[in-house]
Amino acid sequence: MWRDLTPIGRNTTTNGYRRYAWTEADADCREWFKAQTETRGLTYEVDRNGNQWAWLGDPTAGDAVVTGSHLDSVPDGGAFDGPLGVVSSFAALDELRARGARPTKPLAIVNFGDEEGARFGLACVGSRLTSGRLSVEQAHELRGADGLSLPQAMERAGYDPDAIGPDPERLARIGAFVELHIEQGRALADTADPVGVASAIWPHGRWRFDFHGEANHAGTTRIEDRRDPMLTYANTVLAARKKARIAGALATFGKVSVEPNGVNAIASLVRGWLDSRAADEETLAAVVGEIERAAVERGQRDGVDVRVTRESFTPVVEFAHDLRDRLSGLLGGVPVLPTGAGHDAGILSASVPTAMLFVRNPTGVSHSPAETAGEDDCLAGVAALAEVLEGLACH
Amino acid sequence: MWRDLTPIGRNTTTNGYRRYAWTEADADCREWFKAQTETRGLTYEVDRNGNQWAWLGDPTAGDAVVTGSHLDSVPDGGAFDGPLGVVSSFAALDELRARGARPTKPLAIVNFGDEEGARFGLACVGSRLTSGRLSVEQAHELRGADGLSLPQAMERAGYDPDAIGPDPERLARIGAFVELHIEQGRALADTADPVGVASAIWPHGRWRFDFHGEANHAGTTRIEDRRDPMLTYANTVLAARKKARIAGALATFGKVSVEPNGVNAIASLVRGWLDSRAADEETLAAVVGEIERAAVERGQRDGVDVRVTRESFTPVVEFAHDLRDRLSGLLGGVPVLPTGAGHDAGILSASVPTAMLFVRNPTGVSHSPAETAGEDDCLAGVAALAEVLEGLACH
Repeated sequence: MWRDLTPIGRNTTTNGYRRYAWTEADADCREWFKAQTETRGLTYEVDRNGNQWAWLGDPTAGDAVVTGSHLDSVPDGGAFDGPLGVVSSFAALDELRARGARPTKPLAIVNFGDEEGARFGLACVGSRLTSGRLSVEQAHELRGADGLSLPQAMERAGYDPDAIGPDPERLARIGAFVELHIEQGRALADTADPVGVASAIWPHGRWRFDFHGEANHAGTTRIEDRRDPMLTYANTVLAARKKARIAGALATFGKVSVEPNGVNAIASLVRGWLDSRAADEETLAAVVGEIERAAVERGQRDGVDVRVTRESFTPVVEFAHDLRDRLSGLLGGVPVLPTGAGHDAGILSASVPTAMLFVRNPTGVSHSPAETAGEDDCLAGVAALAEVLEGLACH
Repeated sequence: MWRDLTPIGRNTTTNGYRRYAWTEADADCREWFKAQTETRGLTYEVDRNGNQWAWLGDPTAGDAVVTGSHLDSVPDGGAFDGPLGVVSSFAALDELRARGARPTKPLAIVNFGDEEGARFGLACVGSRLTSGRLSVEQAHELRGADGLSLPQAMERAGYDPDAIGPDPERLARIGAFVELHIEQGRALADTADPVGVASAIWPHGRWRFDFHGEANHAGTTRIEDRRDPMLTYANTVLAARKKARIAGALATFGKVSVEPNGVNAIASLVRGWLDSRAADEETLAAVVGEIERAAVERGQRDGVDVRVTRESFTPVVEFAHDLRDRLSGLLGGVPVLPTGAGHDAGILSASVPTAMLFVRNPTGVSHSPAETAGEDDCLAGVAALAEVLEGLACH
């Protein structure tokens, strides 16, 4: 099962995955999901927002137990972020059936579309649309680097963009959602436990910093005549790290675009995207505010105009305490830990009792081809998920 | 004449020019050059390196007086850098003919290919190839962002890439080369003179700084576990400005590329290109050495590996003193000034007596759509060039 999925969307130079929403690589991943569904005689469904579902039992019966994750990737992402959850879901279902477990509730596996937001700059688009956290109007404004809007990209991939929108009936039929995911840090790495349960997701957001200066010749413009936005950007990158470190938060500039981006031209515009997260929303707001102030202050020195746009924001997510405790109990008291990463589970938790399982990541590396998990730990994840599904759906 | 050229390769969003070597916009500029040549009954030639020539008189007679410049642009460049020299050359020739001047030597106008290096990262490719300053082997290694090599791009544009190489016979037939160019600073702006003569070109070069870190998840990787090359890059940008300012030199990072360039991914690789120039080679070497040391030092703190590659270097150019003095005399003692910008004239000066005329630039802005020159100053440039051509070719 894993072997069929690994070659899809892999870049042979970087060995990283480039499975962006509604591209050919994404279509191949979706074909794989459909084939897994059909092989097992499950009921295949695509919802109005393009999320894929595989049902065991009656999808309309209600109180369903749903597991799953996503198959898309960040640019040059690793093999596990997303796919481990989907593959483990099918494997856990196989395990349940092998045991002869008899679910008393409908069971489903889901593949949420466009979780990473690599193409349109907004994460968890599939679950956001379904839960009404992203409106149809906002979705129409999402546009990728190739100039296509989200609806246009969906249409080219063979989906009906006019169908997208909130899906409260679907959510109302779900009694519990459990997402298994590779851990994206090293909290489990130093423990004896290959699996943990999530407590909360830190609040996080993305802010676009536009630094407007003046294009000019790099070889002839005197230093005192320059309005070089690269300097303001550079200073802001360093300020972000410093402010975050002091506050115990995270702040990262990982994406930049420069105009005109010529070797011998002073930039006219530098755009940098800030990703920032913290344990609580007050700290996050304070850190981002300080970074913005530092940017504006330096911009005044450089003759550079700074504009900041919040592109997305996700409040703190506390996973349902009773479900969390039940999972931890079913698994014999495994560690309970928070995470800084956003997930479809975080989006759904406002509508549905939701929990997450994390599988140990020895290096903590994530969003990189170096991301990895041991085979034994992956199998422990499948066993834990089977245990959880049996506990939630069969009793 | 000017009106036909201005729409070519203009980006309607930025109003800047994108006339990169061997593209469609470049082909249109070349068609324009050919049409100007034919309209005037001049002899049209394309040399083995794709440079265009328009001859009045016998190209093989020797001791030719040649003027001209280039028609390609930097990304989102201005209308004057390059084209002003070519257009003024044709206008000056018209002026000579209108006066009834009778050249005793062959006269030629040249359009050198790929002066800006916007596509393949190396400036003055046409004149470098002709003068043997760029070997055929090196030219084959030049590759643009679209993956095409220089020979492949030339072939697609309809030129024979197997023909490229040094052209000493052609250079031996040139007695003097004069390039008219818009000034790229403000030295003439504060004087009463619309035209000046160049004394020297500062030595300059391009260095690629590769900052290798480790890709990771921006939301989950603890600060102490990060190896974020964006920090090292940012620190190096600020160090470059500081070291250059102290030394009275110029240092600019205007081009960056980031991998994977995702909003929620710590970068694995940041590439920044340094353009640096100084009045003498010792100062330049010292400044670049200090920037490199600062980068490596900060890289050690960040866990980032820094590698620096010199992509090009152009030694100081002292234009031929007797030609320079002759031009200044012909023009009644106009200002003589140095420049930080590289030019085909700088490349040719090692093989041929070479001089440059600068036309006043009121704002000093260059390599930007805001680049401009007054109409009177442009006409004064044509008059000066006509004076020079008459002085050199008709007596």
